Amino acid sequence: MREIKYGMVGGDLNAFIGKVHRGAIAFDPKTKLVAGCFSKDHEKNHATGFMMDVPPDRCYETYKEMAQKESERKDKIDFVVIVTPNISHYEIVMEFLDKGFNVVCEKPLCSTVEQALAIQKKAEQKGVLFAVAYAYSGHAMVKHAKQLFDEGKLGKIININAEYPQEWLIDELAGTESKTAKFSGWRADPKVSGVSNCVGDIGSHIEHTIHYVTGLRIKRVSARTDYFDHDLDLNANMLIEFSNGSSGMFWSSQVAIGHTNGLRIRIYGTLGSLEWYVEAPEDLKFTPRGEAPRKLYRGAGYVKGRAAEFSRIPAGHMEGHYEAFANLYVCYLAALRKKLDGKKPSKDDLDFPSLADGVEGVKFIHAVIKSGKNDSAWTTP
Amino acid sequence: MREIKYGMVGGDLNAFIGKVHRGAIAFDPKTKLVAGCFSKDHEKNHATGFMMDVPPDRCYETYKEMAQKESERKDKIDFVVIVTPNISHYEIVMEFLDKGFNVVCEKPLCSTVEQALAIQKKAEQKGVLFAVAYAYSGHAMVKHAKQLFDEGKLGKIININAEYPQEWLIDELAGTESKTAKFSGWRADPKVSGVSNCVGDIGSHIEHTIHYVTGLRIKRVSARTDYFDHDLDLNANMLIEFSNGSSGMFWSSQVAIGHTNGLRIRIYGTLGSLEWYVEAPEDLKFTPRGEAPRKLYRGAGYVKGRAAEFSRIPAGHMEGHYEAFANLYVCYLAALRKKLDGKKPSKDDLDFPSLADGVEGVKFIHAVIKSGKNDSAWTTP
Amino acid sequence: MREIKYGMVGGDLNAFIGKVHRGAIAFDPKTKLVAGCFSKDHEKNHATGFMMDVPPDRCYETYKEMAQKESERKDKIDFVVIVTPNISHYEIVMEFLDKGFNVVCEKPLCSTVEQALAIQKKAEQKGVLFAVAYAYSGHAMVKHAKQLFDEGKLGKIININAEYPQEWLIDELAGTESKTAKFSGWRADPKVSGVSNCVGDIGSHIEHTIHYVTGLRIKRVSARTDYFDHDLDLNANMLIEFSNGSSGMFWSSQVAIGHTNGLRIRIYGTLGSLEWYVEAPEDLKFTPRGEAPRKLYRGAGYVKGRAAEFSRIPAGHMEGHYEAFANLYVCYLAALRKKLDGKKPSKDDLDFPSLADGVEGVKFIHAVIKSGKNDSAWTTP
Amino acid sequence: MREIKYGMVGGDLNAFIGKVHRGAIAFDPKTKLVAGCFSKDHEKNHATGFMMDVPPDRCYETYKEMAQKESERKDKIDFVVIVTPNISHYEIVMEFLDKGFNVVCEKPLCSTVEQALAIQKKAEQKGVLFAVAYAYSGHAMVKHAKQLFDEGKLGKIININAEYPQEWLIDELAGTESKTAKFSGWRADPKVSGVSNCVGDIGSHIEHTIHYVTGLRIKRVSARTDYFDHDLDLNANMLIEFSNGSSGMFWSSQVAIGHTNGLRIRIYGTLGSLEWYVEAPEDLKFTPRGEAPRKLYRGAGYVKGRAAEFSRIPAGHMEGHYEAFANLYVCYLAALRKKLDGKKPSKDDLDFPSLADGVEGVKFIHAVIKSGKNDSAWTTP
Repeated sequence: MREIKYGMVGGDLNAFIGKVHRGAIAFDPKTKLVAGCFSKDHEKNHATGFMMDVPPDRCYETYKEMAQKESERKDKIDFVVIVTPNISHYEIVMEFLDKGFNVVCEKPLCSTVEQALAIQKKAEQKGVLFAVAYAYSGHAMVKHAKQLFDEGKLGKIININAEYPQEWLIDELAGTESKTAKFSGWRADPKVSGVSNCVGDIGSHIEHTIHYVTGLRIKRVSARTDYFDHDLDLNANMLIEFSNGSSGMFWSSQVAIGHTNGLRIRIYGTLGSLEWYVEAPEDLKFTPRGEAPRKLYRGAGYVKGRAAEFSRIPAGHMEGHYEAFANLYVCYLAALRKKLDGKKPSKDDLDFPSLADGVEGVKFIHAVIKSGKNDSAWTTP
Repeated sequence: MREIKYGMVGGDLNAFIGKVHRGAIAFDPKTKLVAGCFSKDHEKNHATGFMMDVPPDRCYETYKEMAQKESERKDKIDFVVIVTPNISHYEIVMEFLDKGFNVVCEKPLCSTVEQALAIQKKAEQKGVLFAVAYAYSGHAMVKHAKQLFDEGKLGKIININAEYPQEWLIDELAGTESKTAKFSGWRADPKVSGVSNCVGDIGSHIEHTIHYVTGLRIKRVSARTDYFDHDLDLNANMLIEFSNGSSGMFWSSQVAIGHTNGLRIRIYGTLGSLEWYVEAPEDLKFTPRGEAPRKLYRGAGYVKGRAAEFSRIPAGHMEGHYEAFANLYVCYLAALRKKLDGKKPSKDDLDFPSLADGVEGVKFIHAVIKSGKNDSAWTTP
Repeated sequence: MREIKYGMVGGDLNAFIGKVHRGAIAFDPKTKLVAGCFSKDHEKNHATGFMMDVPPDRCYETYKEMAQKESERKDKIDFVVIVTPNISHYEIVMEFLDKGFNVVCEKPLCSTVEQALAIQKKAEQKGVLFAVAYAYSGHAMVKHAKQLFDEGKLGKIININAEYPQEWLIDELAGTESKTAKFSGWRADPKVSGVSNCVGDIGSHIEHTIHYVTGLRIKRVSARTDYFDHDLDLNANMLIEFSNGSSGMFWSSQVAIGHTNGLRIRIYGTLGSLEWYVEAPEDLKFTPRGEAPRKLYRGAGYVKGRAAEFSRIPAGHMEGHYEAFANLYVCYLAALRKKLDGKKPSKDDLDFPSLADGVEGVKFIHAVIKSGKNDSAWTTP
Repeated sequence: MREIKYGMVGGDLNAFIGKVHRGAIAFDPKTKLVAGCFSKDHEKNHATGFMMDVPPDRCYETYKEMAQKESERKDKIDFVVIVTPNISHYEIVMEFLDKGFNVVCEKPLCSTVEQALAIQKKAEQKGVLFAVAYAYSGHAMVKHAKQLFDEGKLGKIININAEYPQEWLIDELAGTESKTAKFSGWRADPKVSGVSNCVGDIGSHIEHTIHYVTGLRIKRVSARTDYFDHDLDLNANMLIEFSNGSSGMFWSSQVAIGHTNGLRIRIYGTLGSLEWYVEAPEDLKFTPRGEAPRKLYRGAGYVKGRAAEFSRIPAGHMEGHYEAFANLYVCYLAALRKKLDGKKPSKDDLDFPSLADGVEGVKFIHAVIKSGKNDSAWTTP
């Protein structure tokens, strides 16, 4: 099997999401981190490189230097992972695309719809393999949900109810005697975070996961967004019309006490329904019409096909967030190896969030914020 | 303790809801069913009367006859329970109000906002004690939820997410090869059911239960209603603005596979949150800000106050739908006994769904349907 | 339908279990409480009689007077409910049996195995209809569990794990700074309670419920009982060999923090398994071999047969402890009406805990206590 | 940070547990697999080495050659991971101990108590750092359970109920028309598996996890083991007396339909109780005496101390089996780095399952099997 070399922009030792990407990639023993620009801070950059066995001369001071110098090397990186703050995604992505690098970029892809379309155009021109890191669709049982839908087990979708509540910013509300300042700095600053906080950070995961399972896109959204005296949204309720004409609701919040990381999707069809909850990611509630609800477990004999392929360890030995991320890379690396070998990736190889998904996510975020500012007027992404 | 005599309109032996009312009232050993017009069918009427030990001469052929004749008796009924199909509530209620009877009426109160206001006016003129049978607020742990809110344990409400999905009409959708005709006859006929099916039948329970716990009313609603080729709604998604300016969403459905009777309310405040689910009615999830979620059980030592008063049997011995209904009557009968004795009912005696709640419910139903027909325009009840 | 008249011994207004029996019987509109000896205290006795509309001359001072005088009446009671403290069951039951009355007696039936056998002999001689109030087997989904077993859905039973933990006596343990004296008076006194506290009070429910579902009896028990410096047991762990040779474990406790009333039964066979939990009594977990676990709900279309017959209200409208008790009486009263009419009760009419079940319960309690005192030696009930 | 080099015996590409060890170790970026004897099959051995970038000359044909040649190298491995079938642990461990290597060995440690004691003696002589891979105590919330116990939050332990049911061997029972042969070959052969199948494989995890949290050892066990016509046990029920005199029950099974990997521990004290379930490893049910049960989540602000240190990613992003395994190695590698640097590992560094734990596990297994063969006689490990 071909060894894959990669680089990373962002993701110093203290950054949670960089660590997750590296851990996820490490499930593939034939990959190697060989270059990086982990931090603008020289010391942090090199400390991270040292811990990761990246040679000092491939710990670059700037992403531009990295893109340039790597592109000149014979043993250059095969792809780059971009895990910097949202606002910088666009310029970094464009730089690496210019040099023809394959890219994995954190979500949201970028700050504006115009940027998203520019990235999409450039990536197509360069013919690179591009993934956007919506990791929840990497969970084996989300793949099984998609499989059940594809097999027609749900019939026609008639209603969707999905949500992503968290509680971690509740202290930021006036009157709650905030002792922390979690919602401050770049996160609370529209100049850095872009048009949205909560919808951009977690709401877009709802949109992606629903699309992944059902193939449906958002036709229109009518949103009510809550700012609680901040410049960016902390809570959003959304009425949805899907591309097939069916109805639904999304809710994302970072001020919902009692929820740690509550992504939950519920999909109702004419023949069956599904419920999946990220805090119990290994089981999937499935109810066929007229029958009793059942709990399908990853790894069980009755869970065949795609989910079984993504099952590393026996049923009941929990696979979680790292493994979902790893599954994204299982596909991306399979496709990349074929591309590098001059072969055509299969449909299964391409079972990772695409650039089109990233573009759709940016459109969705903007539509929600726009509707919210417009007294919940129906808005098309 | 004073014995209370009551009559019933509707509720023959085959009618589920009449049986529930009689069973709920029977928890009070000093009440007696003494008159009725249980069915328009003479035989069914008398068969029911016989089973309930109602004397044949007080099994009336029509509700008008019943109202008239009972009003002429010295030992007349103390109150009447009206459990007929929705469309007939108005005329029956008005007839008994005219004669000055105290009334318990099934929900929804009536078919139009105009009727509701007329009933309200007449009831005030006559000075009767009037209850509308929203029974879910009778559950001990819903009362405890209200108590926690009243004590300030939730702080200011910032978001509410509530729903009432059921699956029992799924067979009525085109393409599902319906073998039943559950959604037919009076239920599917706007002339009998009024403007709404699903929102009227179960959506109004969401509105009432939320109001009961928080005191909030609906300022505006933006709804998407689904008819699936029927004359009346089977599914509705609603964006809500509450009277305190906070946001929320309601969802009611009778075509959501996997749900039997899934009323669930989730209330988020600045200091805490609550979750209650009717299919596990004896526990209440409560999360104080910054602390772990906890499960409060009816009957436990830490559940004091109102919920404890409504606890008949020790913790863990489930009380359910009958007992919730019985709790409505515990209050109604306490208030009625005081009224009949010329005393003033206390605030606790009046802890049952009032005529004002019934009026608000009718307004809510009409606002939702109107918004749905108007491309989800914000609509004020 | 024949009207049934009954009397009660014990069960004054403050007694929880008397109220439950009366409430359960009241679900049958053609029954009437007409006599009683509700308390040794004259005033309490008459206050209870007044509330229940029992004529003063049928509120007896002693149970002996009641048995005698009722037996002399033409309109005598059709059956008597005995809800006094355990120690008195034997003499009261024998008195009413002597006079030929049909009996419903609270569990445990009596204090010793000798007494149990004497009751059984006398009841057979007199040909009375006798029930022992193990109410948990009245839950619709326990009946469905039995039906699934009877239909062979579990195959051969190979293991059973059942438990009944409660927490309410934890304050009685040394070192816990008891502020209450819940475990005192008659309950903690072997002279009144008999040989056992915890096993007698709740452990016997485990034994009965398992027997009800599977038909299995206890062949041998090896028990470890914990007294924590009291005269009677507060906790018991039991290794079981069932009559079919299979293995299992029972646990009953009144000092298990975190459990209110946690009766849970889990039955494993070669073809399927069942799990039922009294605090969510309306659903039954059923896993067929090689398939996903499913949740069967009372009232759902796929729950047919016996459980459906015992379903008063639609799925998802919870029926609880009162209704389970009522189901015991549904059967008992059906059988009694046939007996009084000179007909033979059907097998379904007799679907209530029998005298044989009561005898087996007493044997079980004694075997557990004996094994516990004998270093867990295997002991045959 | 010092780079650590390790070798592995067993664990070819198809072996599940070898992959888990490598994945778990890979969470530490400064570790490297440099030697191995992954399979007795030459091709499998080298294929695995190739995938893992192990140089061909360090892919050894036999574990003896590996121990010998590695011991002669200057850049020899720092520790060896032994993941071969149970029966071979003893001889392999002894070989590497002889050469002075630090060892991580899969559980159970070995086949007999005599072997266990011999390993213990040798390891002490050689002064090596030895871990036995009971990974469940690596879960952050199990560490938090231990912390709550250590802080006195449970008071004195009075009862423990723990179990580990699985369903995967149910097809092996007579009468179930087995289509597989999962329980065959080495697993079902006492010559290879040792005295026990089910108790050895999973029952010993119960014993270890309980010991880890409470520090309690097994004083005596009274067991009933079920063989179902096989040579080794498939199901075991165990009555336990703990070293503090308290009671409890363990149940392990591989024929319990409906359970995938159901390790569950419940610990009851005089001041509080804990419940932890491996299939929802990120939350811990904790009930303080007299209060409501609460759900503690890994990563939440109220979960401080040891569990927080082992939290890689934010609350609600599930960490599972790999991460638990990784936590074992976090400690082992910390201790190993100190040892190699001539420093003394701290108590926290040594927070991994020790050789003493491995010895105790072997004793436990033998005591259970012996008791089972002796009609459940109390047996001391």
